[in-house]
Amino acid sequence: MADEDGPGSVRPGGRTARVRTAVLEAAGDLLAEHGFARLDLAEVAARAEVGKTTVYRRWRTPAGLTADLLVDMAEQSLPRADTGSLHGDLEANARLVAKTLTDPRQSRLFRAVMAAASFDDAAAIALHRFYDVRLTEWSPCVTDAIGRGEAPPGTEPRAVLTAVSAPLYYRLLASGDPIDEQAVRVAVQAAVSATTAGVFVRSAT
Amino acid sequence: MADEDGPGSVRPGGRTARVRTAVLEAAGDLLAEHGFARLDLAEVAARAEVGKTTVYRRWRTPAGLTADLLVDMAEQSLPRADTGSLHGDLEANARLVAKTLTDPRQSRLFRAVMAAASFDDAAAIALHRFYDVRLTEWSPCVTDAIGRGEAPPGTEPRAVLTAVSAPLYYRLLASGDPIDEQAVRVAVQAAVSATTAGVFVRSAT
Repeated sequence: MADEDGPGSVRPGGRTARVRTAVLEAAGDLLAEHGFARLDLAEVAARAEVGKTTVYRRWRTPAGLTADLLVDMAEQSLPRADTGSLHGDLEANARLVAKTLTDPRQSRLFRAVMAAASFDDAAAIALHRFYDVRLTEWSPCVTDAIGRGEAPPGTEPRAVLTAVSAPLYYRLLASGDPIDEQAVRVAVQAAVSATTAGVFVRSAT
Repeated sequence: MADEDGPGSVRPGGRTARVRTAVLEAAGDLLAEHGFARLDLAEVAARAEVGKTTVYRRWRTPAGLTADLLVDMAEQSLPRADTGSLHGDLEANARLVAKTLTDPRQSRLFRAVMAAASFDDAAAIALHRFYDVRLTEWSPCVTDAIGRGEAPPGTEPRAVLTAVSAPLYYRLLASGDPIDEQAVRVAVQAAVSATTAGVFVRSAT
């Protein structure tokens, strides 16, 4: 039975895949609307028009469902940019982050998952894995820049990418300052400037 | 009646102040334990050993109570450092942020409030006001640096301070990467490097 396969074994176009798509969309909607604390598998099943038993059997808990949603989001997320320059690639990255964080559904969804991660280990692991996939996907932007002589050898890709995204997340989650064109520009320039200066070179210690 | 004063009119040492201290401590504990969605005024009153009526009359809603907790946290937060150098001041700031974000109660409390802010406007306003107070308190570190010739005229203090804190928040909330000595050092060096390069100078446009 296809239904007994794990979440990782989706056959695109099959019934299992269609069920997963509907359930994950409903789960994302409900997380964005009410947060993780009120995520209810029966409500997800009703909204997705899928049998409750299927949802309970396959995802078991709200944390399990949230974890699979993050797996799906990581799979669907856009590949790295390859513009030919570090500045161009980091700007593409910053624009993608800004677009996600200024989208009402997406930004509430991320905040809901971050809240879940502070109370649930499975959600935390899934959240960190999502960012790990993203940071790994975009790392070649930095290693390519090292190859082109735009960044010093030993520059840590993850530190550079964190420097680009972090000020935009801080605006969403902490200060409430706008995530606008100026914020994107400054985040990219600051990351490029610090990269060029060698700040992100892996330390020997 | 002191009880009819607003939350802003605390007389230190008075009964009103003692009640507020007990209630806010209980609210902070419960937020850190269970998150905003499960914050219940009756439970706060019981834990604080304060009459339920007092809590309902004075704070009215979980969002109102969370907002007052943030007012109190802003009032209690440490004054800016004044080490005599931009690097020293920003390092003190980064250490303070790292200490808060690696404290289990504090980090869960902040995540709970951030989650509340995505579903409740009053909580969002209170959260943004908290960061506004912090960013304003620490801004003289940057204006003093401009005065000493360590930063170009027109450097935006808020952008510099955001650059210092943001990578540490990103590690807590998104990537899960450790908030350690190395993370603090890199965040400070990146912010100083970009500041010196003029990245945070207010743009004319």
